[in-house]
Amino acid sequence: MAFQQNYRARYGIAVEEEIAAAASPVMEKMLDHRSCRRFDTEPVPEALLNAVLAAAFAAPSKSDLQQRCVIRVRDRQKLGRISRYSDSIQWIADAPVFLVWCGDNRRIRRLAEWRGNPYANDHLDAFMNAAVDAGIALQAFITAAESVGLGCCPVSEVRNRVFDLSEELALPPHVFPVAGMALGWPAETPVISMRLPPAMTVHEDRYDDSSLEEQVADYDSRREAVDRTPEDQQLMVDTFGVSETYGWSERRTRQYSVPARADFGTYVRQQGFCLD
Amino acid sequence: MAFQQNYRARYGIAVEEEIAAAASPVMEKMLDHRSCRRFDTEPVPEALLNAVLAAAFAAPSKSDLQQRCVIRVRDRQKLGRISRYSDSIQWIADAPVFLVWCGDNRRIRRLAEWRGNPYANDHLDAFMNAAVDAGIALQAFITAAESVGLGCCPVSEVRNRVFDLSEELALPPHVFPVAGMALGWPAETPVISMRLPPAMTVHEDRYDDSSLEEQVADYDSRREAVDRTPEDQQLMVDTFGVSETYGWSERRTRQYSVPARADFGTYVRQQGFCLD
Repeated sequence: MAFQQNYRARYGIAVEEEIAAAASPVMEKMLDHRSCRRFDTEPVPEALLNAVLAAAFAAPSKSDLQQRCVIRVRDRQKLGRISRYSDSIQWIADAPVFLVWCGDNRRIRRLAEWRGNPYANDHLDAFMNAAVDAGIALQAFITAAESVGLGCCPVSEVRNRVFDLSEELALPPHVFPVAGMALGWPAETPVISMRLPPAMTVHEDRYDDSSLEEQVADYDSRREAVDRTPEDQQLMVDTFGVSETYGWSERRTRQYSVPARADFGTYVRQQGFCLD
Repeated sequence: MAFQQNYRARYGIAVEEEIAAAASPVMEKMLDHRSCRRFDTEPVPEALLNAVLAAAFAAPSKSDLQQRCVIRVRDRQKLGRISRYSDSIQWIADAPVFLVWCGDNRRIRRLAEWRGNPYANDHLDAFMNAAVDAGIALQAFITAAESVGLGCCPVSEVRNRVFDLSEELALPPHVFPVAGMALGWPAETPVISMRLPPAMTVHEDRYDDSSLEEQVADYDSRREAVDRTPEDQQLMVDTFGVSETYGWSERRTRQYSVPARADFGTYVRQQGFCLD
């Protein structure tokens, strides 16, 4: 039963009985993932954090290169400064644990030097592999954390002032932040963020988004039906006015109508990457 | 007990009792992750695959933009052609299920057009977010699949001929492959790939790799102690000769001494991305 309920909350549509019957408790729990931004003052035991991290770094990585690392921000003053990079992330200053996941292409380069072997992969692929390696570990961290009732939230806004962040964390060349991560015992029951239906995200043999507009119109309605956006909470009304058909697509396209982190490429190149 | 054993197999070192006591069964299972490349002929039930996919797409995504999708390669001839992109991935032709995870920045762009809002995020950050979104879902897929005893293996070599792959999958502008994924019932018990110790991947307040060489020398020895590489299986002996201290670092730096996928940047730009 819980799988059906979680599926409906997650996708806004009913799941076929056969699919629910095939699912495991782990899948049921994963469907129920929520991003948590308010935490109890109760600390996260160090041992538990270490267990979660051990599970996270067990996740696969491209060519076994393990091009990722995590910086735990323990210094509360440092975290306070990072929390002021954006109005929307001031809450991270109070997170019991705060981490920054990084892509780490430095290690393999240092090892090449150490072993006396040339390093011949200075191009976009190497950058992407490190970023994806970080994303993979980040997701494993979330599943592990939520399995014991911890709440977490990935935070990309820490990159809003990426040069400052990089300096705070003393990131050397070929290391770059991918996302922050807050962790603690939940002091709220966050809403489930409804997802696009599988019909839009799972393709067969070839990419096909020919029904995008009608699918997204339905999806927008389903989301608004459960979690209606009041008119006074529409985004950037000064620019776009009040929309009669406000929903996920309107909100997200308004958000992306202004540049965010356009300096990230400059930063990544400054960290030594060639992105050809 | 299983957590301790899995931790030792995963990291090659003993885990503190407190950490093991704090761990959940989900973490214990995640520590035991293995990449599986040989599968039973028994098919994966469609309902089960759909349940795994539902769990995968429940994972978080940057700004709720869900910039990812998956292409299932059902056409066996197509999969056969893809399997010939590299000698090392011919085995994927026999995988019961084969998927290709993609970053999808096309959807938000099409939606911007549809909603009549400008799209102002044509830069590296947007590309990375889509790639990381795909990596996050890929990892959630693995955890969900392994929770019911399925085996899987991410396969980045499908990008070795990325222009061909893109054509096979009819990827339109602003969609790009991140990794393939084979899935099925395991017909082997693969080795656990030992990971770098937390001392190297978890930093406090600032990045610090000052003990890299000694840490990696120890790590190399630990790996070789469990899974010794015979001399005749050393990589690229013609170029580098036989190494007395062969291990992970020597193998991986030899691998990266030749360029791999140096055309990926050209491809991504051809797909319409600006990487400034």
